[in-house]
Amino acid sequence: MPNRYAYLGPEGTFTEAALRELRPDAPAEARVPCSGVEAVFAAVRGGSVDGGVVPLENSVEGGVPATTAELIAGEPLLISAEVNVPVEFTLFARDGVALGDIKRLATHPVALGQCRGWLAGHLPDVETTTVSSTAAAAQAVADPGSSFDAAIAARIAGERYGLHPVAHNVGDRSEAATRFIFLSRPGPLPAPTGADRTSLVAFITDDHPGALQELLNQFAVRGVNLTRLESRPTGAGLGRYCFCIDADGHVAEARVGEALMGLRRICADVRFLGSYPRAAGGAVHVPFPPTWSTTNADFDEAERWLARVRSGQPG
Amino acid sequence: MPNRYAYLGPEGTFTEAALRELRPDAPAEARVPCSGVEAVFAAVRGGSVDGGVVPLENSVEGGVPATTAELIAGEPLLISAEVNVPVEFTLFARDGVALGDIKRLATHPVALGQCRGWLAGHLPDVETTTVSSTAAAAQAVADPGSSFDAAIAARIAGERYGLHPVAHNVGDRSEAATRFIFLSRPGPLPAPTGADRTSLVAFITDDHPGALQELLNQFAVRGVNLTRLESRPTGAGLGRYCFCIDADGHVAEARVGEALMGLRRICADVRFLGSYPRAAGGAVHVPFPPTWSTTNADFDEAERWLARVRSGQPG
Amino acid sequence: MPNRYAYLGPEGTFTEAALRELRPDAPAEARVPCSGVEAVFAAVRGGSVDGGVVPLENSVEGGVPATTAELIAGEPLLISAEVNVPVEFTLFARDGVALGDIKRLATHPVALGQCRGWLAGHLPDVETTTVSSTAAAAQAVADPGSSFDAAIAARIAGERYGLHPVAHNVGDRSEAATRFIFLSRPGPLPAPTGADRTSLVAFITDDHPGALQELLNQFAVRGVNLTRLESRPTGAGLGRYCFCIDADGHVAEARVGEALMGLRRICADVRFLGSYPRAAGGAVHVPFPPTWSTTNADFDEAERWLARVRSGQPG
Amino acid sequence: MPNRYAYLGPEGTFTEAALRELRPDAPAEARVPCSGVEAVFAAVRGGSVDGGVVPLENSVEGGVPATTAELIAGEPLLISAEVNVPVEFTLFARDGVALGDIKRLATHPVALGQCRGWLAGHLPDVETTTVSSTAAAAQAVADPGSSFDAAIAARIAGERYGLHPVAHNVGDRSEAATRFIFLSRPGPLPAPTGADRTSLVAFITDDHPGALQELLNQFAVRGVNLTRLESRPTGAGLGRYCFCIDADGHVAEARVGEALMGLRRICADVRFLGSYPRAAGGAVHVPFPPTWSTTNADFDEAERWLARVRSGQPG
Repeated sequence: MPNRYAYLGPEGTFTEAALRELRPDAPAEARVPCSGVEAVFAAVRGGSVDGGVVPLENSVEGGVPATTAELIAGEPLLISAEVNVPVEFTLFARDGVALGDIKRLATHPVALGQCRGWLAGHLPDVETTTVSSTAAAAQAVADPGSSFDAAIAARIAGERYGLHPVAHNVGDRSEAATRFIFLSRPGPLPAPTGADRTSLVAFITDDHPGALQELLNQFAVRGVNLTRLESRPTGAGLGRYCFCIDADGHVAEARVGEALMGLRRICADVRFLGSYPRAAGGAVHVPFPPTWSTTNADFDEAERWLARVRSGQPG
Repeated sequence: MPNRYAYLGPEGTFTEAALRELRPDAPAEARVPCSGVEAVFAAVRGGSVDGGVVPLENSVEGGVPATTAELIAGEPLLISAEVNVPVEFTLFARDGVALGDIKRLATHPVALGQCRGWLAGHLPDVETTTVSSTAAAAQAVADPGSSFDAAIAARIAGERYGLHPVAHNVGDRSEAATRFIFLSRPGPLPAPTGADRTSLVAFITDDHPGALQELLNQFAVRGVNLTRLESRPTGAGLGRYCFCIDADGHVAEARVGEALMGLRRICADVRFLGSYPRAAGGAVHVPFPPTWSTTNADFDEAERWLARVRSGQPG
Repeated sequence: MPNRYAYLGPEGTFTEAALRELRPDAPAEARVPCSGVEAVFAAVRGGSVDGGVVPLENSVEGGVPATTAELIAGEPLLISAEVNVPVEFTLFARDGVALGDIKRLATHPVALGQCRGWLAGHLPDVETTTVSSTAAAAQAVADPGSSFDAAIAARIAGERYGLHPVAHNVGDRSEAATRFIFLSRPGPLPAPTGADRTSLVAFITDDHPGALQELLNQFAVRGVNLTRLESRPTGAGLGRYCFCIDADGHVAEARVGEALMGLRRICADVRFLGSYPRAAGGAVHVPFPPTWSTTNADFDEAERWLARVRSGQPG
Repeated sequence: MPNRYAYLGPEGTFTEAALRELRPDAPAEARVPCSGVEAVFAAVRGGSVDGGVVPLENSVEGGVPATTAELIAGEPLLISAEVNVPVEFTLFARDGVALGDIKRLATHPVALGQCRGWLAGHLPDVETTTVSSTAAAAQAVADPGSSFDAAIAARIAGERYGLHPVAHNVGDRSEAATRFIFLSRPGPLPAPTGADRTSLVAFITDDHPGALQELLNQFAVRGVNLTRLESRPTGAGLGRYCFCIDADGHVAEARVGEALMGLRRICADVRFLGSYPRAAGGAVHVPFPPTWSTTNADFDEAERWLARVRSGQPG
């Protein structure tokens, strides 16, 4: 039986598009739509599938709260791959419905947020309802008895549910993109490629000011560049946060490993979420300040030097 | 005519409860419900009301994206007050509907997120729809022709729409709270009280690693404690963020003023959002390290010393 | 009566050469040689002269302990000018004494340190005595009854005391230079020139690790570059240090003024030693990181912005 | 043949007293006096002795330049022990010479610096000459044909050269102490004791401001406390410095080893000078901030956690 993969459904979501990119050879029956991010995590944790895909962050709206919540708490899963999918929104309706006929529109809250400008200009009086996904919106609209006249959704959703496009590219920002992650159960990490990313959650101790700065310093002092820092309430009351962090590099590298050990020592808790190839690809190590020597080779050399020094030889 | 205040409606929202706390003497007709956070900002900006109240962050779900989006962009408004409201969720239904009868439930996405555990235990098969507010959910349920059987909402919403409570405190976290802010048009700031908060948005330059750390350092070096740091995409593509920051203290204080000037010099842009009394009250200045002298009196003394030194006198 | 200036004598020292550069128009009788750095400070403090010149640091040996000791303690004086003098050592003897005849040599300890290599090569068996200055060595050798055969001293010392040069440039490092300072009683500071230096002594609190780093941070966060940091025991026991610091810029500049106020707040004590034109000349402000805006104009702009923000206007 | 040890002579120096403390069982003939710090280093390097003792720093005057110069450059030696010796100065003269008879006095420059106050009060007109050591001064005075009437020296010097004490404790600071180090040729380091010190020289790159701060940060981020930081010219011109550093801990400890690797990567050069038991004794690790976990056990735990994480297990 081929591997099976859960994703945030129903059929036709951007997440399904992401899964198709990440597992292009998987047959259609290997793709298992789930209703809700939580259900994808549950399917992977429970073993009914071999992996799962969920959205992690969007370039306009920021982190996806449900994904972050699941990554932070519950049984740990690993991120083993990522992919960025451009977000191109299409306004779909049933056959025969024109732009001027649209009174009630369904879509996902994030999509709604990203199409506000277009809607204000073209459908200023439309009543909007947010549902669990853009595909669910398309699915609902496809029902002839639906109270919705139109949906904003991904192109594949319109195709899947037999809707016709009323307007293309109704998003306010043409460069909008969503980053999706592939979830796996704990197991061997993807091998380092030289252009990797490491994700983790750091729970800072909150008993003194400056704790976040100290956390960042653990990365800076080893020349590890951060590509994302998202604060998130721990749920333990206003003013208590943890931080979801993406850093350049693979935990197998000395640079990243040392930084993580540093976090481990100064944080209340650290949850490692995975090391995996960067979606954008290409080598990314940027030393800062420019004079610092912080490549893997520099770390190796320093370790050999330390071994000599510890044995009493002149460095 | 008395002052009028916009709030995130419809009637019966937690936001209305917040407004009542912030303006206890305002008559009912002075409270103007708006459909959507954006509408509250627009009303205040346009001058049809004298102020407005919106939710800023929730202790479980984090920042409210629409509020943050409006604070960051568009015509600037000032935050001139804040209040924290405990989030106590009630499950409401029309008379005659019991727990076992509930098939379809409406609520706000944040409320849904905070009641997941309770719902999984008590209504595992319920179909949930998220609408623009908990009060809108209650309002919808009150309609006898509604397709919804129940709503999760604030107590005042049930009262307002004539629903009966099926279950109290259905939130998963009893300590959950939401922080609301009062928006004003630009004008004189509230006077310093000794227990104030300053809010701002910092857009970091992204041309070198460590930029966030440098930003935090501008606060740390003056002994200014941060109480909130929320990353937010600038909308200009994945990996580009700005930071919404709350700091202890009032911009009229030298400590905070100096830190803000420092940000102004090193950031791509800084948007000042206001200085106002802290909701929690009480003096809060906590020097760190403990030996630092960073009270207002210490700043005054240092300024007098500098004046002497600049005039050529021994310090 | 013309102004009179004390200097570290006797006649013929490098310090006299420095004074001649700093006050080229002063007649010979205006130059008052003193025996010892302490005597120069005492003369300036006591008012018998209008200023004084002493060596501060040498590019090979480092700080001059007696000068540092006097700057740190006792009645405060201001540094109002500086000059760098190349250190060119000449081996002098009485007429008729050749290199091979030299058995006993006198010079200053710093000069001895800088000619060790040459002496080892050319006079390996010479007996050396260190005296209070290179000029005193020349003066001693000039006495026909002296037990010394030769002196290492400045060119002007040989001329002054009628000695003949046996060897030129006997220093081991041709680029050696000494930095001299002009001492004044407290009074108006030299006006900013755009290429100034500020000197001070910082006494750190020693009750927690990291105190020096915090001190340096007060400069870094305002973009103030340090050109010298010399640790010095406070005299209160092993392991207790203060720091003599030179920074780019003038205390009248906001950048430097703010940094000094910061030190004032976090240090046990700060002694301001003066702001004066740099010897090397030329504008020197180097922002770091390169994206920071830390010129005087940037500080002015930030101050105007803060005034707007404090008055409740949009920034 | 027993081990032989060089020290800064002649007989009767404070350095001899230090050697006696460090090697109490060595017979007198095992102690080899050398004329000059350089000669001690040369003897150890050349192998004619098995170790050597020199002064490193004084609580009043600071670092001993000749020792620092030799440690920084030339063939590397290791510091394998240290001892602190209280500096108690005695004024010695030949029999029959009373305080009032003293016209010319000899001593070491550092001793002179520490007795200035006493001399100003009791022998204001005395002519002082500085020689290579306090013991050399005593030796010279012991010569009946000497031009010196008195010497300031250590007690053992007076005993050794048959002088009588004219005044005891003529130093201005009763708590003055000198720290001496024991030099060894490269070889196995002393085993960690739990209360060790590590010495090194760091040559910073000078192409950007903030380089010293970055260096200190490499220690701070691992919770390594510095006990000494002495700047020293590199000899390559005014404004170019290296830093002699003492840190708490042994290079065999992960905490110190990681910090040294960090320096190795960011500095132009690092010279390791040794890890050895602290003179003062007692465990010294002081975490800062107090919440950090930076003991050796914490480093071990973090390493085990990293190994688990790298193997794909939940942390």
